[in-house]
Amino acid sequence: MSTRKVPDVVIRRLPLYLRVLDELDAQFSPIISSRELGEKAGVTSGQVRKDLSFFGVFGKQGVGYYTSTLRAELRRILSLHRVINVGLVGVGNLGQALLRYRANKQKRPGAEEGLSIIAAFDKDKRKCGQQIAGVKIYPVEQMPELIRELKLSIMILTVPADAAPAVFEQCVRNGVKAFLNFAPVKLASPAGVRVHHADVTLELESLAYYTDEKE
Amino acid sequence: MSTRKVPDVVIRRLPLYLRVLDELDAQFSPIISSRELGEKAGVTSGQVRKDLSFFGVFGKQGVGYYTSTLRAELRRILSLHRVINVGLVGVGNLGQALLRYRANKQKRPGAEEGLSIIAAFDKDKRKCGQQIAGVKIYPVEQMPELIRELKLSIMILTVPADAAPAVFEQCVRNGVKAFLNFAPVKLASPAGVRVHHADVTLELESLAYYTDEKE
Repeated sequence: MSTRKVPDVVIRRLPLYLRVLDELDAQFSPIISSRELGEKAGVTSGQVRKDLSFFGVFGKQGVGYYTSTLRAELRRILSLHRVINVGLVGVGNLGQALLRYRANKQKRPGAEEGLSIIAAFDKDKRKCGQQIAGVKIYPVEQMPELIRELKLSIMILTVPADAAPAVFEQCVRNGVKAFLNFAPVKLASPAGVRVHHADVTLELESLAYYTDEKE
Repeated sequence: MSTRKVPDVVIRRLPLYLRVLDELDAQFSPIISSRELGEKAGVTSGQVRKDLSFFGVFGKQGVGYYTSTLRAELRRILSLHRVINVGLVGVGNLGQALLRYRANKQKRPGAEEGLSIIAAFDKDKRKCGQQIAGVKIYPVEQMPELIRELKLSIMILTVPADAAPAVFEQCVRNGVKAFLNFAPVKLASPAGVRVHHADVTLELESLAYYTDEKE
């Protein structure tokens, strides 16, 4: 089955569903309805059913989804059944915060994280060789060979805006297909390369809408 | 006209449109088509027209939108025509990174930011009184009175997970209606209070989908 055409907004909701399932105890909740799953994930039951139908996943009419089956299925769809190695470039304040944050998250019960940051890169030689939350910092010059050696398939960019395009291009050239970009700059992604922008300004601007009393 | 029922996903796209318009020079592009606006914002032209129609904003058939009018309209819809004061709680690595990041963003040309972080709070007395990127750090005990005094209408939470619920509740009790939460914990928001969760794990999990070759 081709899944190439699944809209990105659908893909972005799957981890939400997965989180709901991760937080359930399958022993006490062997089955979950689309209504319950939707409520916990913040979407309608219809949306849940439509999203999952993209992947040929259907619940039992009037019953729901088998919790542990759906959970395994979502992990497979998202490729989280495999080990996914993540690299981080730019160990400034934000990079350090993410390394520590991820270290905490990896303790999430029941999550069996296959997804973890296993290497960080920085151009500052004084940082190189150090570890933060168990992740070693390498000189950025070693990035191309380490991307291949460590099989890094997602890169988090926490470099300054002016450094981001060159780092991005170098990662792409070495086969990285997925990026989480925190640098305040647009990156032109070639076909087959996915860039998610983490943009605090956009978040704040949409929140501004809710500060006003709407009539 | 009631705008209460506008879906959050629509509100989240408006800042994207606004950014496209901010980056245009209205002198050289007095008019923009929904197709062009959509392309630059990464959505379809139909989505652009539907989103804007929620607010009674319609382009001229076969022509497009007047760039500067649409820009002013979007700013008004998002409440960005007013000054919006933002506070930040928790000046660790992440909090510091955000303060510095925002300071850079505020230099974005043509943006006339009405939205800015004007106060930060921390429980560590040694940090209090200091400034980061021009933003003063206050003891968290002063937060309730300063929320009212400085009219803080959005709060950014960069505190540890265990501290977040109490800080959140205190902000809500003092009238804050919009939150950007970076703490890895769910916050139960009462009616009329909007919480956006900045969640790196969800981002990475959806990116994992793109690391696999889909057939």
